Amino acid sequence: MKKTLRLGLIGSGFMGKTHVFGFAAAARVFDLPYEVEPAALADVTLAQAEAARASLGFRRATDDWRSLVADPEIDIVDITAPNALHKEMALAAIAAGKHVYCEKPLAPLAGDAREMAEAAERAGVRTQVGFNYLCNPMLSLAREMIAGGELGEIRGYRGLHAEDYMADAAAPFTFRHDPAGGGALADLGSHALATAEFLLGPIVKVMGDCVTMIASRPDGKGGMRTVETDDVGRAFLRFANDATGSIEGNWIATGRKMQHDFEVYGTRGALAFSQERFNELHFYSTDDRKGRQGFRRIEAGPDHVPYGRFCVAPGHQLGFNDLKAIEVAGYLEAIAGLRPEPFNFRAGLRIQTLVETIHASARAGQWRAVDGG
Amino acid sequence: MKKTLRLGLIGSGFMGKTHVFGFAAAARVFDLPYEVEPAALADVTLAQAEAARASLGFRRATDDWRSLVADPEIDIVDITAPNALHKEMALAAIAAGKHVYCEKPLAPLAGDAREMAEAAERAGVRTQVGFNYLCNPMLSLAREMIAGGELGEIRGYRGLHAEDYMADAAAPFTFRHDPAGGGALADLGSHALATAEFLLGPIVKVMGDCVTMIASRPDGKGGMRTVETDDVGRAFLRFANDATGSIEGNWIATGRKMQHDFEVYGTRGALAFSQERFNELHFYSTDDRKGRQGFRRIEAGPDHVPYGRFCVAPGHQLGFNDLKAIEVAGYLEAIAGLRPEPFNFRAGLRIQTLVETIHASARAGQWRAVDGG
Amino acid sequence: MKKTLRLGLIGSGFMGKTHVFGFAAAARVFDLPYEVEPAALADVTLAQAEAARASLGFRRATDDWRSLVADPEIDIVDITAPNALHKEMALAAIAAGKHVYCEKPLAPLAGDAREMAEAAERAGVRTQVGFNYLCNPMLSLAREMIAGGELGEIRGYRGLHAEDYMADAAAPFTFRHDPAGGGALADLGSHALATAEFLLGPIVKVMGDCVTMIASRPDGKGGMRTVETDDVGRAFLRFANDATGSIEGNWIATGRKMQHDFEVYGTRGALAFSQERFNELHFYSTDDRKGRQGFRRIEAGPDHVPYGRFCVAPGHQLGFNDLKAIEVAGYLEAIAGLRPEPFNFRAGLRIQTLVETIHASARAGQWRAVDGG
Amino acid sequence: MKKTLRLGLIGSGFMGKTHVFGFAAAARVFDLPYEVEPAALADVTLAQAEAARASLGFRRATDDWRSLVADPEIDIVDITAPNALHKEMALAAIAAGKHVYCEKPLAPLAGDAREMAEAAERAGVRTQVGFNYLCNPMLSLAREMIAGGELGEIRGYRGLHAEDYMADAAAPFTFRHDPAGGGALADLGSHALATAEFLLGPIVKVMGDCVTMIASRPDGKGGMRTVETDDVGRAFLRFANDATGSIEGNWIATGRKMQHDFEVYGTRGALAFSQERFNELHFYSTDDRKGRQGFRRIEAGPDHVPYGRFCVAPGHQLGFNDLKAIEVAGYLEAIAGLRPEPFNFRAGLRIQTLVETIHASARAGQWRAVDGG
Repeated sequence: MKKTLRLGLIGSGFMGKTHVFGFAAAARVFDLPYEVEPAALADVTLAQAEAARASLGFRRATDDWRSLVADPEIDIVDITAPNALHKEMALAAIAAGKHVYCEKPLAPLAGDAREMAEAAERAGVRTQVGFNYLCNPMLSLAREMIAGGELGEIRGYRGLHAEDYMADAAAPFTFRHDPAGGGALADLGSHALATAEFLLGPIVKVMGDCVTMIASRPDGKGGMRTVETDDVGRAFLRFANDATGSIEGNWIATGRKMQHDFEVYGTRGALAFSQERFNELHFYSTDDRKGRQGFRRIEAGPDHVPYGRFCVAPGHQLGFNDLKAIEVAGYLEAIAGLRPEPFNFRAGLRIQTLVETIHASARAGQWRAVDGG
Repeated sequence: MKKTLRLGLIGSGFMGKTHVFGFAAAARVFDLPYEVEPAALADVTLAQAEAARASLGFRRATDDWRSLVADPEIDIVDITAPNALHKEMALAAIAAGKHVYCEKPLAPLAGDAREMAEAAERAGVRTQVGFNYLCNPMLSLAREMIAGGELGEIRGYRGLHAEDYMADAAAPFTFRHDPAGGGALADLGSHALATAEFLLGPIVKVMGDCVTMIASRPDGKGGMRTVETDDVGRAFLRFANDATGSIEGNWIATGRKMQHDFEVYGTRGALAFSQERFNELHFYSTDDRKGRQGFRRIEAGPDHVPYGRFCVAPGHQLGFNDLKAIEVAGYLEAIAGLRPEPFNFRAGLRIQTLVETIHASARAGQWRAVDGG
Repeated sequence: MKKTLRLGLIGSGFMGKTHVFGFAAAARVFDLPYEVEPAALADVTLAQAEAARASLGFRRATDDWRSLVADPEIDIVDITAPNALHKEMALAAIAAGKHVYCEKPLAPLAGDAREMAEAAERAGVRTQVGFNYLCNPMLSLAREMIAGGELGEIRGYRGLHAEDYMADAAAPFTFRHDPAGGGALADLGSHALATAEFLLGPIVKVMGDCVTMIASRPDGKGGMRTVETDDVGRAFLRFANDATGSIEGNWIATGRKMQHDFEVYGTRGALAFSQERFNELHFYSTDDRKGRQGFRRIEAGPDHVPYGRFCVAPGHQLGFNDLKAIEVAGYLEAIAGLRPEPFNFRAGLRIQTLVETIHASARAGQWRAVDGG
Repeated sequence: MKKTLRLGLIGSGFMGKTHVFGFAAAARVFDLPYEVEPAALADVTLAQAEAARASLGFRRATDDWRSLVADPEIDIVDITAPNALHKEMALAAIAAGKHVYCEKPLAPLAGDAREMAEAAERAGVRTQVGFNYLCNPMLSLAREMIAGGELGEIRGYRGLHAEDYMADAAAPFTFRHDPAGGGALADLGSHALATAEFLLGPIVKVMGDCVTMIASRPDGKGGMRTVETDDVGRAFLRFANDATGSIEGNWIATGRKMQHDFEVYGTRGALAFSQERFNELHFYSTDDRKGRQGFRRIEAGPDHVPYGRFCVAPGHQLGFNDLKAIEVAGYLEAIAGLRPEPFNFRAGLRIQTLVETIHASARAGQWRAVDGG
């Protein structure tokens, strides 16, 4: 009989639902080490919390997240509240000895993220930040191919995460435009950075270029508010493995909905990937026979763990929500000690550190070494 | 308070799990008219049934599907047992007044499917056959565009469903090679036919071409068994709307995993689609300005119902299992009388009729009118 | 010192210029066995002929093609006049002992083409019909891969040639709509048939489906003229090598400009090609390692003869006119006895035979054996 | 009667042949203002020159380029000799009052290029540098769309030129590795820079990142020689129109043969282009109807000048050599005063200036303003 972990969810907006869905899907798709019971749900008002409780199948609703965090019954605190609250909530949960699952970004500032990571490590609880693009079996395949030497020595990298959801200059000022932690680099470039290090290992030096293209946005009160955060954030990169590269985070890339792309060039081969077609990985190998070389479109299938959990036949394709289920499963296995945490608070801190170093470099107009890189 | 429907599942293999998963996902993603409770599960042995019951979260397990079908508590009988048993189970369930959800193909032979469809209609129960490729929002978009005249008058169609899972001549003889209902046309071509009629309406005449390329397969007992079913089934088509076209079903198409593709040509525009990238629909319009015309890659997003149920942002992509959740939601809405049945037994019969008419045409080497087309 | 062949060109429209350009380009790109001198040019009026003579660099102009054909100085007669005149001109040229290069289609009817082929063979002159899509190095690569067994035993084929230049119902009736030799199958499907046999060898049996979608077209005199030729021509195919397949010729495929595509499926691999991107060939091999299989996009380069004649670096791409230069070079090498004729009158007859057999099959609604197939 | 210009070619290697071919093709494809007569050809030895003269159809051969340049009969001096000789030859030709056509790069250093540009301008002769990727009708279309406001205000740009022809560390040291003018940025990045300014106008500020990945290469004498030039050169860009962007030049991008790509993002639309499929331009417009938006694949056709000169039908595709013919035609029209010089020595200087500014920026690790930008 499996042990049951009781889940306490804070926040019931889009990401809250996505998490609940992820837990439910993971339970059906994977052979998990635990049952997870949706126990308590907190939201700003009791009415909201109660409505979400009913629709999402939790046992208990509250408008007091502190009581949820303190509840001895709860094993995992899952934070999908606004970013500005992540730190206070997470530290309280850690103090109460809970495992903590927190949506990205972990905290607006690296200093906060560090405090959270260190607290979790001291407390010995398991943590997870939601970087679910990394959960794609094709990214695991890419990492495995790189690590296994199938591309030879890695020399070059190009990474992107471009969308267009802020392209309209009439879109209002939001918390995403707050100088503390906002901007395209922090919001989308962070994914490009996470993928870059997932594949190639630590980045040791960066040169940033962060630009604000839409200088002010409607403040929601009939006026305009100056925007200080970047609409496009770029960086040149140096990796510890001697490869060099670049990334771009961009939320005004008209027409792009999910251009989380990368290309990796090695001495013996190359990979090209686009999240726009994320069930494919394109692989070029110099081992192929002369006159027969070319980028090979590998379609996701049961050969690519854990695709086979979702479907026994190749080519059927995973969707975005399936990636969340993979994320949840990895986290639960880490709680059980079966594997390292897939993307813990320390990893979340790492991304914030990279983002802030790029910001600092861009402001200074000079290269910056990455702390701990 | 929503009414609860109690689900009785027969069969707990891959498709059984997929169905359960579909019900669970649909409940979280959609605002369904019913709660669905996994009540009873039947499988061949009690041990199998009990194991599936525990892992899939049903209340009761049995090795006697007849008792499940007769159980007055059960509202929906969901049949994922081997094809040869569909008819007996479905007729028993209909006789007991249950709604019946049955995996495809509905029955090996059109005559059986007709009996099932007519029984369901007489009994007034709601039925569903699993043709989930049709549940893709991009296919709904295609149908809506065609019906709305965005392509003008439709003239031509090309449809495919090609895979390679029978390409290996050493793969053994299975029930799929049984002359009663087996073969590539019945198994995969049926999807191409369903999509063709979903988009363009009734097919009225066909000319078939069915070929067996692998003449015999291992019989599992050390010998070889002659294969009489087709490895490739093709047809020329005449539609009631005067368009003409062709389809191909192929299970020996080396390298193809999910080539469920179509192209539609009208007087004012065209569509091209590949299930290999099923979150995209390619649209050409002669209304576009001269020098700017071209096939436009529309990516699935919240504009394409019900994508927005799964994700609020475009470009994130649905997966195969999400299509099953859409299928389940449509069925439950049909049970509630909110919409017609998405793909009922009558529709399942229709596909069997098309397949058998193509087979008959191929044997005769002559065109055949499609009954009721 | 190279021997000089003197060229007599009949017709100076688009294809006439393309041929002259092809001879000039071939001379610079290839190390040809002959110099070719543009000697005489015939057109309907002397004024037209003279203007073309000046701009295309011929020595002599005439409005009398018979005198050109009879001129003892001329070695090659190049016919780009309207199709209806091909036969008379070619037979006269052959009678005068000239080599004859004739644009496709060789003749409206197979009977005429046969007469022409037999006359040329009796006379021992070298002939060429313009099927320049076959001159693509990627098609040679495909043929070489198939012949060399890289795909294993060939099982299936899908071929297309679809464009949209007759999609507008207001486009007037032309010689291409003449029942003697007109229609989409003869005009475009002929290319699909030529490619199919180029790759897989002889077609032995066909089942045709030819449809007229635009029943009448403006006759240029204010009235409408009934169209009897096909707008779409399809065929099921049986090859001598036991493969089966299909082709389609279509000139009302809205949005398609050059969909001369094919897919070949064998026991060990597959190929996919589109003329829309004709410097690429996509190759799937079951020899690739598990988990690394996929269609490989081979880009044209110096490894693919004779690409290197045009460019020393891969990926630079050939254009349509380059294919014509390759055609010319092959023909001149054949005149010099260095290789067989690439696509002689006998081959042109073969295509007409296939087209007529498909037409006959479509009319009868029955399979037909291909004469000499 | 057209005036004849007499061509003197220096150098008869690959680029020399490409130029001669370009002149010949242009004469047939375009209605040029001049006849061009291949008059004299110079190469290092008389034997080489004589062989090239015969095969390329020149009247006179010499081993003394100075006599060719001084020859009063010669109107255009065409320089395809090694880069290090460009300056001396061009200045001599300009001094003799000739028009000068020079392969890229114009000169190893911007200072030399400036001297050449100023000399030509003082002498009033017409000059041309070979940047033939810009001659693609799809690039003209892109520029026209941007200039015409079809994308709205331009915000972002990504440009690339990546190949793999130096990816092999065993490839020997060549003149391309010479610190004076060598390296991937100068060789390939120059194309990316030319395209960026062709489309968006002047770059005013750059931040460079130039890396040497292969530290030494065989010196051809059994030893190794240290490489000081870049294998990858990247830059962040600021344009005068307030757009920002980046480019990369890379000659060790394993698997890439011709990745001369760009993406342009504006307030109302976007463009995406790859030289790997250079007969296509992908266009996204926010003017398209909701739910129907997407990148539209525009295929080159007669609507895109001067495609129609090469082929009357769309979709047939131009090749690399056709781009050279367009370049030649533009140059001859400029000599006739019918249009500005397409890419004169001043433009060639501009590219060298950009390259050197990026190099200087990379060495300093700081942004640099571009002189005259």
